[in-house]
Amino acid sequence: MSIEKLNGYITQIKGLDKGAMAKARARQAELAKPPGSLGKLEDISVRLAGISGEMFYNADKRCVIIMSSDNGVFEEGVAATPQSVTYSQTINFTRGIPGVCAIAKQFRADLIVVDVGVNADIDHPLVINRKIRKSTWNIAKGPAMTRDEAVRAVLTGVDTAREAAGRGYKLLGAGEMGIANTTTSAAVLCALTGVAADKAAGKGAGLTEEAYKRKIEVVRTALEINGPDPADPIDVLAKVGGFDIAALAGVFIGGACMRVPVVIDGFISMVAALAAARLAPAARDYMFASHVSYEQGYASAAEALGVEPCLNLGMRLGEGSGCPIMFAVIDAACAAMRDMGTFAQAEINDEYTAAIRSAASFEI
Amino acid sequence: MSIEKLNGYITQIKGLDKGAMAKARARQAELAKPPGSLGKLEDISVRLAGISGEMFYNADKRCVIIMSSDNGVFEEGVAATPQSVTYSQTINFTRGIPGVCAIAKQFRADLIVVDVGVNADIDHPLVINRKIRKSTWNIAKGPAMTRDEAVRAVLTGVDTAREAAGRGYKLLGAGEMGIANTTTSAAVLCALTGVAADKAAGKGAGLTEEAYKRKIEVVRTALEINGPDPADPIDVLAKVGGFDIAALAGVFIGGACMRVPVVIDGFISMVAALAAARLAPAARDYMFASHVSYEQGYASAAEALGVEPCLNLGMRLGEGSGCPIMFAVIDAACAAMRDMGTFAQAEINDEYTAAIRSAASFEI
Repeated sequence: MSIEKLNGYITQIKGLDKGAMAKARARQAELAKPPGSLGKLEDISVRLAGISGEMFYNADKRCVIIMSSDNGVFEEGVAATPQSVTYSQTINFTRGIPGVCAIAKQFRADLIVVDVGVNADIDHPLVINRKIRKSTWNIAKGPAMTRDEAVRAVLTGVDTAREAAGRGYKLLGAGEMGIANTTTSAAVLCALTGVAADKAAGKGAGLTEEAYKRKIEVVRTALEINGPDPADPIDVLAKVGGFDIAALAGVFIGGACMRVPVVIDGFISMVAALAAARLAPAARDYMFASHVSYEQGYASAAEALGVEPCLNLGMRLGEGSGCPIMFAVIDAACAAMRDMGTFAQAEINDEYTAAIRSAASFEI
Repeated sequence: MSIEKLNGYITQIKGLDKGAMAKARARQAELAKPPGSLGKLEDISVRLAGISGEMFYNADKRCVIIMSSDNGVFEEGVAATPQSVTYSQTINFTRGIPGVCAIAKQFRADLIVVDVGVNADIDHPLVINRKIRKSTWNIAKGPAMTRDEAVRAVLTGVDTAREAAGRGYKLLGAGEMGIANTTTSAAVLCALTGVAADKAAGKGAGLTEEAYKRKIEVVRTALEINGPDPADPIDVLAKVGGFDIAALAGVFIGGACMRVPVVIDGFISMVAALAAARLAPAARDYMFASHVSYEQGYASAAEALGVEPCLNLGMRLGEGSGCPIMFAVIDAACAAMRDMGTFAQAEINDEYTAAIRSAASFEI
């Protein structure tokens, strides 16, 4: 039943509005600058028009959705941090302590915190309880979850994004909190793309050489034992993923379903976006990559998804902390589209207008 | 006399405040995140402390300084745009038409527009008249300007930055407007670094293969005829530079002199920053690279200067249009430094605190 519900949402995703995009491109061509000279800012504004049907997108109401969950593979010693940190940070998101809180506040973004599988009881008014179960199972010993649980986790993300869109949010960020989730993300990346485990698993600054080797071995073991089917993203998420990754994949699908753009954060968020695009290829048009994660596997995941990040900040915090900075880049794109003058408004003679339109750059 | 004045400013530039940086680093280590996980945002906040002596930098009052000037090398046919565009856009900056206006407004940055050598009379209350002369001479036939003019152009930039700092601006962007100034910038880059002309000159999207070859040839000719001395940046600026580049170099020196950070925009701004650092090596610590310009020579210039941009947007508009987006990245760095909770504020038990401090990432 759940899978039918998910498939229903997936089929609701519409392609971009080509008419609105053509109009947006026409306006970009009228703005007083050489064509293409604002690079990705132009692409962003055109795509936002395709998403919304509107020439001038208003992304003022925005939020970062954080999916918190624990991962059974923690017991393999792949994480340098105690599992209880998932719980602690989930509570701290509501108290404004973690990095994402400070950065989201700076760029006027709200946080929506969802417990989708934290390994502790959370009864907190600001944490949405959508717990599938306390922690997944250990992927090095068997599947992370049942297929039904995977579908339910994805649907949790879909619902969260749909509810946010229903409340008027026009721009979503996809963040996570889950100790050991770079291991599960690496396994999902390997399963979906065939990338080797030692290219998918990241070393991080604090992981010893020994722990890093163990992490790679755990990813290999998880793939061997579970044999996830690359053609079946739900199978991959169920066998070697996590509730956090599955729910984030759902956020991308839910955003696309509601025609709301969703910003990808770092490695885990990028892997979730890739899983979402495998489930719902049309969802890809609603995704915006933010920053190049310091985590090794990020580049492979971004390449597989076919997206290019706009920021290179060496960040590796997770939590969705890179999303609000990308919101500012999107603000810049919207501002240029909305507030720049056109050639006509520039009231400059025809010779000037013709010349500048054909020029590659003012700088030549 | 002018050169003594400039040297006076250069010797005023102080190194970063190491004590303040140590305190900033100590605070970063207290913030509730794995060390280093905010990447360049941490580096930025530490450097801002070194620049200002303050732990919490307030960059709310900021501006983009635009140096407008014409270049005599225009007559060699190296530009696809009429020379009059320098004049038109300089006026349009005061009317809110160009891209930098829309983007600066979005991030609450003011514009300071300076005519340092536009090839037309400008009598406008919002354009600061610091014209050295109407346009430089053609670098393919001789020097762009006299040595004295080069020093005066640099001093114009120094004065502009010092006045801005005196008016309370805490963050400057370095932009320009000057048709044909990618040609002069390429020549300056070649002279300062030994990079080959065909690696320094950019093709741009609108330049034909023929025009591109001519541009490279013009750069080579300018270098041969003038023989600029790589060890003497004023000689390089005078012989193959422009008033715009020289004045921008001065902005970097003036900012450093007043202990105010200066953001580098695209290719021309980056070459000016490189020239400034050759004149005043201590000024480099006050510079922040913003975005990877689409212009080919940018990477060589950034490498020679030893800076890493934070944004990759495929932009090639100039005007300082990338600076305000970097202001937002700096805002993110300041926000994390100021608003994140410490481990102590997180009120989490000692085991957690110890573990998270030693971890490379929450995500592991």
